[in-house]
Amino acid sequence: MSAPLALPPTRILGIDPGLRITGFGVIERIGSKLQYVASGCIRTPGDGSLPERLKVILAGVQEVVDTYHPAEAAVEIVFVNVNPQSTLLLGQARGAAICGLVSRDLPVAEYTALQVKQAVVGYGKAGKEQVQHMVKRLLQLEGDPQADAADALAVAISHANNGSAAGGLMALTKTTRKRGVRLTALPERK
Amino acid sequence: MSAPLALPPTRILGIDPGLRITGFGVIERIGSKLQYVASGCIRTPGDGSLPERLKVILAGVQEVVDTYHPAEAAVEIVFVNVNPQSTLLLGQARGAAICGLVSRDLPVAEYTALQVKQAVVGYGKAGKEQVQHMVKRLLQLEGDPQADAADALAVAISHANNGSAAGGLMALTKTTRKRGVRLTALPERK
Repeated sequence: MSAPLALPPTRILGIDPGLRITGFGVIERIGSKLQYVASGCIRTPGDGSLPERLKVILAGVQEVVDTYHPAEAAVEIVFVNVNPQSTLLLGQARGAAICGLVSRDLPVAEYTALQVKQAVVGYGKAGKEQVQHMVKRLLQLEGDPQADAADALAVAISHANNGSAAGGLMALTKTTRKRGVRLTALPERK
Repeated sequence: MSAPLALPPTRILGIDPGLRITGFGVIERIGSKLQYVASGCIRTPGDGSLPERLKVILAGVQEVVDTYHPAEAAVEIVFVNVNPQSTLLLGQARGAAICGLVSRDLPVAEYTALQVKQAVVGYGKAGKEQVQHMVKRLLQLEGDPQADAADALAVAISHANNGSAAGGLMALTKTTRKRGVRLTALPERK
């Protein structure tokens, strides 16, 4: 029996995209432990045009990456709305958030809300409050994080658990593939 | 009666966004004349993950801007697909294309397919071939442009006509607003 390898700490950025509010959460995975680093929201002006709002999301995500230097990123897969126009708007917001990550050459994994709930609460149909409660508990937070920030932290936790369970980034790639999650290792910028 | 003012030449970039193929077309408006500059397509790898493909669109649009230095940009407003999943994917591609423009501080106008057909052919229900034919004629092209590039050139022509008809950028803003088009003058990058 071989002893488990000590993994180097990995900083993970989770994103919960939205046109009005995009939540972000940064955590660090140190061995089997998770540590809170930062979280918050990127808000777009309600009276702004769509290109203006996408610019705020893009620049906001880039600023978060430049401030906290995560090594990996995870983005929630948004659900399809009953209103096609809302789906289109949400899609554009998510596109802008992902652009903020890939423009900084971060590998981006994607998780569905079901996968996030399963990973954080252990139950795919868990309510928003249960997710927030578990995020607070798992990261030993003293106060309640803002709802969108909590969702982003939950995405980061899902990604961290996916990786640490299998032992490192290489195994994480395998694990996430097995679970149907696309992990993208992007080539170095020229 | 005052003489019409001579407008400075304005270079316009039109974009027809898509996840697989994003068409682009660059034209120059010199007085009441339009001149072809360049056009082409940004293709994303079919076997790439979504973040990888969005990165190709973002970097591709930025490269076009950096190469041709347009002063204004116009993007077609994509129609909502019957398939919500396709709508979401197209939305993300469009978000990435717009990010390519706003990350270079370009003002971005948006036009529906109806407005483009009206502006180029004079008939909102014109077919794809009619649009391509008129693009070829208006820009005095010798060969047939690729379909997605032709659509992007048509968007650029719509924007040029919108502006030159009213006499310059200030009036263009007014005109486009009157027609329900959002023109966005973005603030300077810090």
